Amino acid sequence: MNTSVFETYESNVRSYCRSFPTTFVKAKGALMFDDQGKEYVDFFAGAGALNYGHNPDYMVERMIAYLQNDGIMHSMDMYTPVKEEFLNYFIQNILEPRGLNYKIQFAGPTGTNAVESAIKLARINKGRQNIFAFMGAFHGMTMGSLALTTDRCSRDGAGQILPNVTHIPAPGMFPGLDTIAYMETLLTDDHSGVEKPAAVILETVQADGGINVFPADWLVQLRDLCTRHDILLIVDDIQVGNGRTGTFFSFERAGIVPDMVTISKSIGGCGMPLSMVLFKPELDKWEPGQHTGTFRGNQLSLIAGKAGLEKMVNDNVLGEVKRKEAIVEAFLRDEIAPLDSRICYRGIGLMWGLDMSKFDRDMTKPLIAACFKNGMICERVGRDNAVLKLMPPLVIPDDQLLRGLNILKKSLQEIL
Amino acid sequence: MNTSVFETYESNVRSYCRSFPTTFVKAKGALMFDDQGKEYVDFFAGAGALNYGHNPDYMVERMIAYLQNDGIMHSMDMYTPVKEEFLNYFIQNILEPRGLNYKIQFAGPTGTNAVESAIKLARINKGRQNIFAFMGAFHGMTMGSLALTTDRCSRDGAGQILPNVTHIPAPGMFPGLDTIAYMETLLTDDHSGVEKPAAVILETVQADGGINVFPADWLVQLRDLCTRHDILLIVDDIQVGNGRTGTFFSFERAGIVPDMVTISKSIGGCGMPLSMVLFKPELDKWEPGQHTGTFRGNQLSLIAGKAGLEKMVNDNVLGEVKRKEAIVEAFLRDEIAPLDSRICYRGIGLMWGLDMSKFDRDMTKPLIAACFKNGMICERVGRDNAVLKLMPPLVIPDDQLLRGLNILKKSLQEIL
Amino acid sequence: MNTSVFETYESNVRSYCRSFPTTFVKAKGALMFDDQGKEYVDFFAGAGALNYGHNPDYMVERMIAYLQNDGIMHSMDMYTPVKEEFLNYFIQNILEPRGLNYKIQFAGPTGTNAVESAIKLARINKGRQNIFAFMGAFHGMTMGSLALTTDRCSRDGAGQILPNVTHIPAPGMFPGLDTIAYMETLLTDDHSGVEKPAAVILETVQADGGINVFPADWLVQLRDLCTRHDILLIVDDIQVGNGRTGTFFSFERAGIVPDMVTISKSIGGCGMPLSMVLFKPELDKWEPGQHTGTFRGNQLSLIAGKAGLEKMVNDNVLGEVKRKEAIVEAFLRDEIAPLDSRICYRGIGLMWGLDMSKFDRDMTKPLIAACFKNGMICERVGRDNAVLKLMPPLVIPDDQLLRGLNILKKSLQEIL
Amino acid sequence: MNTSVFETYESNVRSYCRSFPTTFVKAKGALMFDDQGKEYVDFFAGAGALNYGHNPDYMVERMIAYLQNDGIMHSMDMYTPVKEEFLNYFIQNILEPRGLNYKIQFAGPTGTNAVESAIKLARINKGRQNIFAFMGAFHGMTMGSLALTTDRCSRDGAGQILPNVTHIPAPGMFPGLDTIAYMETLLTDDHSGVEKPAAVILETVQADGGINVFPADWLVQLRDLCTRHDILLIVDDIQVGNGRTGTFFSFERAGIVPDMVTISKSIGGCGMPLSMVLFKPELDKWEPGQHTGTFRGNQLSLIAGKAGLEKMVNDNVLGEVKRKEAIVEAFLRDEIAPLDSRICYRGIGLMWGLDMSKFDRDMTKPLIAACFKNGMICERVGRDNAVLKLMPPLVIPDDQLLRGLNILKKSLQEIL
Repeated sequence: MNTSVFETYESNVRSYCRSFPTTFVKAKGALMFDDQGKEYVDFFAGAGALNYGHNPDYMVERMIAYLQNDGIMHSMDMYTPVKEEFLNYFIQNILEPRGLNYKIQFAGPTGTNAVESAIKLARINKGRQNIFAFMGAFHGMTMGSLALTTDRCSRDGAGQILPNVTHIPAPGMFPGLDTIAYMETLLTDDHSGVEKPAAVILETVQADGGINVFPADWLVQLRDLCTRHDILLIVDDIQVGNGRTGTFFSFERAGIVPDMVTISKSIGGCGMPLSMVLFKPELDKWEPGQHTGTFRGNQLSLIAGKAGLEKMVNDNVLGEVKRKEAIVEAFLRDEIAPLDSRICYRGIGLMWGLDMSKFDRDMTKPLIAACFKNGMICERVGRDNAVLKLMPPLVIPDDQLLRGLNILKKSLQEIL
Repeated sequence: MNTSVFETYESNVRSYCRSFPTTFVKAKGALMFDDQGKEYVDFFAGAGALNYGHNPDYMVERMIAYLQNDGIMHSMDMYTPVKEEFLNYFIQNILEPRGLNYKIQFAGPTGTNAVESAIKLARINKGRQNIFAFMGAFHGMTMGSLALTTDRCSRDGAGQILPNVTHIPAPGMFPGLDTIAYMETLLTDDHSGVEKPAAVILETVQADGGINVFPADWLVQLRDLCTRHDILLIVDDIQVGNGRTGTFFSFERAGIVPDMVTISKSIGGCGMPLSMVLFKPELDKWEPGQHTGTFRGNQLSLIAGKAGLEKMVNDNVLGEVKRKEAIVEAFLRDEIAPLDSRICYRGIGLMWGLDMSKFDRDMTKPLIAACFKNGMICERVGRDNAVLKLMPPLVIPDDQLLRGLNILKKSLQEIL
Repeated sequence: MNTSVFETYESNVRSYCRSFPTTFVKAKGALMFDDQGKEYVDFFAGAGALNYGHNPDYMVERMIAYLQNDGIMHSMDMYTPVKEEFLNYFIQNILEPRGLNYKIQFAGPTGTNAVESAIKLARINKGRQNIFAFMGAFHGMTMGSLALTTDRCSRDGAGQILPNVTHIPAPGMFPGLDTIAYMETLLTDDHSGVEKPAAVILETVQADGGINVFPADWLVQLRDLCTRHDILLIVDDIQVGNGRTGTFFSFERAGIVPDMVTISKSIGGCGMPLSMVLFKPELDKWEPGQHTGTFRGNQLSLIAGKAGLEKMVNDNVLGEVKRKEAIVEAFLRDEIAPLDSRICYRGIGLMWGLDMSKFDRDMTKPLIAACFKNGMICERVGRDNAVLKLMPPLVIPDDQLLRGLNILKKSLQEIL
Repeated sequence: MNTSVFETYESNVRSYCRSFPTTFVKAKGALMFDDQGKEYVDFFAGAGALNYGHNPDYMVERMIAYLQNDGIMHSMDMYTPVKEEFLNYFIQNILEPRGLNYKIQFAGPTGTNAVESAIKLARINKGRQNIFAFMGAFHGMTMGSLALTTDRCSRDGAGQILPNVTHIPAPGMFPGLDTIAYMETLLTDDHSGVEKPAAVILETVQADGGINVFPADWLVQLRDLCTRHDILLIVDDIQVGNGRTGTFFSFERAGIVPDMVTISKSIGGCGMPLSMVLFKPELDKWEPGQHTGTFRGNQLSLIAGKAGLEKMVNDNVLGEVKRKEAIVEAFLRDEIAPLDSRICYRGIGLMWGLDMSKFDRDMTKPLIAACFKNGMICERVGRDNAVLKLMPPLVIPDDQLLRGLNILKKSLQEIL
């Protein structure tokens, strides 16, 4: 295909197409196909939106059936059977088994919209304007979320000040610094100069920040800190929820209960736009219509999303994640790390990072290009984009998982 | 259907379901059907997202075909034939015939995301933080857009200051005030205290502000003002574009060319999430990836959207809007206004407002309830929610249009 | 004197020395003397700090006596007899006769510090961040006051955004606009986009804005508006108080009682730094030490200031102002205005502006230079600096007043 | 004296009078006298404004002579011989011997005004809005300075957000944290979320923060950090300059040259209001009049200030500070610390803190009361006000110094 229409008319802001210079026509499961018939193993998974892989039949069939039957598609927050079924399934199979009691808000169907809703609701509840976020965080691109987001390129794109957020060093970022004690001091020291926040927001595993897995005991301490100081704890599970880390919610491994949770990406099933904010019932201070959005509650997204949840529950997807986690970790340890002592890796579930920052040149750009050439798709994240992010669909078959890993190995050997 | 799951578990923030207390199961064209089989004429049209009506066959069939064929659905900004076709069609059939030369950005698929992109890009281009918006404006609910939005309930929902916006009286709001001269003074008076803005943003017809049609000659003057002062003119056509006013872009009636245009809602065809920012090529200062979003460029939205554009072009939808505009205006003039001298009406294309603010009690809430009872769906907007907004799909058949209008008349008579 | 040390070492920010390029060595009453023995009539009066003229004997003698007796000079907010006497005199002879019941705060001794205190206290009291100020206003140069101040050069000096202020057109600025009704709309319209303010702050006569005398009935309406909407009314009387307009407080002519008043400049007698905030007792929400300042309550300032107040009360200074007002007005009407039809004048008390903005060239710069050459000192203010501000000491003898006016006439004739 | 006028009419904001409930009538050198004839040793020194003690004859005599001769007192930034002499003396005897080449701005005569000027000029120069300040800092009470200031009570008094400042842990505040490396990371990490600042501002010894002496080698590293990252270094020497630490400027002990320096307090001699900003000539981007102030350049302040500088230079005041530093340190070590193991002390020059934070009750309030009763004046500062600040005039005679220290010891024994 001639891509000149994109290059001529589409904004410079486009990015993924630059790493993957081809035209994609089909996709199924963990595989993508371009217009030359070339096949790619997908280790990108729609930045987390495709945990169930591309176009799973059990989703697509229901979407088609609904479309064929003229089911109402666009209904904002009106009542529909589709939304009722989604809610009931989510409550009975996801929330209740985990002992979670949340009210649910369907925000505009993007992750950033869920984050905006959450921080607005937090500020309304506490009557405080400040929010704590962590260095390395990514929470979205609209102005409220962008103030939380840390990468410089995105922030420079704001063109204005981004007030009311204090960025806290992530755990482990400064070896000698106990970040919980640091926050405790900010809150109790009458000369810290830092305003008490309405909420602390975090990804329990920073994805775009470079695959930084926050320790479970640190999460417990953070939950305790928030409780003691009457600060809301918001977990942004947009990318790392939906089973990505081996539990449905990423915070389950720490046994904590956040006051609010934001969900999006794979909650819409096969890349269909959907986002939700979960919060403790007593926080539901919204006036009717106080946060709206035209594309809330898209019915196809709810249909695909519910099908995904059923898959999750019925086919032991979470157990499979744990099993495959071991495969990936072993491969990285035994096949990749030995290739060069400067390679580091870290991760959890099916979310791994290959940290190439110890090299004195940009390794990830050529590595992505080599992977692409060899038939695997992945992206780079983190400081100086030095971390290769490996994030296949959760349902990837073992052979495809290994194919992707071997392409990684081969590609790495080529550029070393 | 039992709606208790919504009332128990869904946030108080839900709003439309309160006006329309039933469960919708199907929809086609301008009609909606609830679970009791009751039929409603849709004068709400998904707040502008359903200009082509519900589930038009020519859209749904293509969506089904694509789904059946495992076409790639979620691809962010990667190249796909679907996006290529959409772009080519949009450029050749919408932009070029109107002599418009814009670059196109697919933002996160909600309208507010397009607005956020536009104001960020404006600020980057001009190196100024302030933006002028108009009293009565609605531009979205995320923090950057919300700072532009004027309704108090939404703003109170922010829980923080909303800086860097100056709100200008809308034309006609203060009879003795020439608002163009007012802005000219703000810009040239060295003691105005108001910072020169990067951009002026407006809806040429304020929708949620109460159906305020800005005069064409005023738009011409505004364009001239912006040009003379090196300020970008952004038209937010999210609700009033896509043919709603009788031209594809709402600003065509004034013969002006904005520097940026935001589009969403009906651009996604049948309620599928999609949004775009159009801007003059020289403004494309984005770095790659500087404004991203997981659900950009949903392929089903592009498929449905292109089908809609074809309908628009091939079936003279714009001409039909003009023809139906006359029907609505005549009905309001001859059948509705005579019912009570306190009733005012105004509008353009297929976007009309019945202004009940001269009554000394809330008329619109009981009126909406009566319409709903009698089989018609519509919402209320504007100051004190005193304006009934009548906005059927553009493709509504004449008989359904008249049915809806007669329900309005009957309902009004019931409550007067 | 060689002025090179100033030009080499003092910042470019210096301004008055550029208009008056000489070295001043002595001053008495309304006269200043330079190192060449040249005499100048002072129509500048220290920008309002010298209402009692330079070095009046009755002040200087007391200051000397205090100094000779080792009276404590620097005591911050500790108790001293000097402060007790000042307070008692001010309360008994200024506040009580006018039926005013205010608590008194001695802020850091500059006017801007008093304004900062007032807006902080207003925001604390009302729990709102926004403040209304008027286009043309000048309230000081520190960040909080600067956000209220309107002249572009000063605002550009901030180097940052100046949030939380809405600038309202001054009365008369837009002939067709009722500015009271405009504010009423901002407050009651649920789509104005403007946050309800904690306070409205104003100079009843804008000085640096170009000698704009706000009408008395407009002030009454503003007081009423503030009361009805639970908004504090702050009168900034730093320049126009202390008898400048013919009453001690400038708002007396309207018969209104502000909630807060800021005073500085001539309250310190002969140019000694002092500032005060007056506010209704119920507004005194300060914690001890919550707004401090090293140079609060300078004893010499209090001594000189009390001597000034005694002069004001005992020598009918206010009556004299009214008498001289007539002299100045007659001279401007009969001697100045006839010189050129493009000359406008306006003013009150001993505060007059010669508006030269109808000329198509800069008239005030050469006019100031000519006045200086001919032996009179004055400054220019307002839009494009097109207004000559005539503001002699209130106690200027009639012959010196006429001498200054005649120099003005002669100088004007020279440059016309 | 009856103090009821203060209690009835003066704002609650007054603070020092609460610790020192008497009426002061006279003062000389390091002694103050109340209306009962009781004598107090002054270990407060006007919060640093009285480094030369109260009413030194060599200042007072010149002030009286000037007053008797009708020297011009209030002249803003006009040229006067007094200002010329002050400038020449300051340049030739203070700046040049230290190899410093600064331009000088006389700001409004309060310290906070100097700080506001400095940060405005820094932001203008660098085109960046953020400033780094340190936890524990105090820089003033007007809105720009207050954003830098850290104590909670003062910040709560703002009633609004205080944007554009990032507070950095002070050196030593978190034992495991290298604060220079921390700032380096904030600046270089592309995911810190912290905006690059225009300037870093600091007191080299935090006074109100609790007498925290920043290490000299740390200051050297900070200077280097700023230079490498093109960030301006601003030293706020308002309280700790003017010889307080044993060198004229507090930063001399580190051998560094800041880009800007703010001075006030004792620069006005005997408590007369004066403030200055010093900056490298290339930073002088001010437009004429872009930062003004009515009380700039008070002539009596310049006269008293120059007399003070002459004293400093001619009588080896700096050497005396070093000699007395040893006396105080020895007394604290030998006489005070042994009284209770929970007592800590720290300081430099004639600025010492007795840290009582290890006690489990408030010790400083009763200690101040006991000192006052026993004839010594001092204040408390720092976290929870737990640090007694000992700051006598630099010129205090040895016997009075020891008298004050012995009162401290006796008072401490009384309350232990």
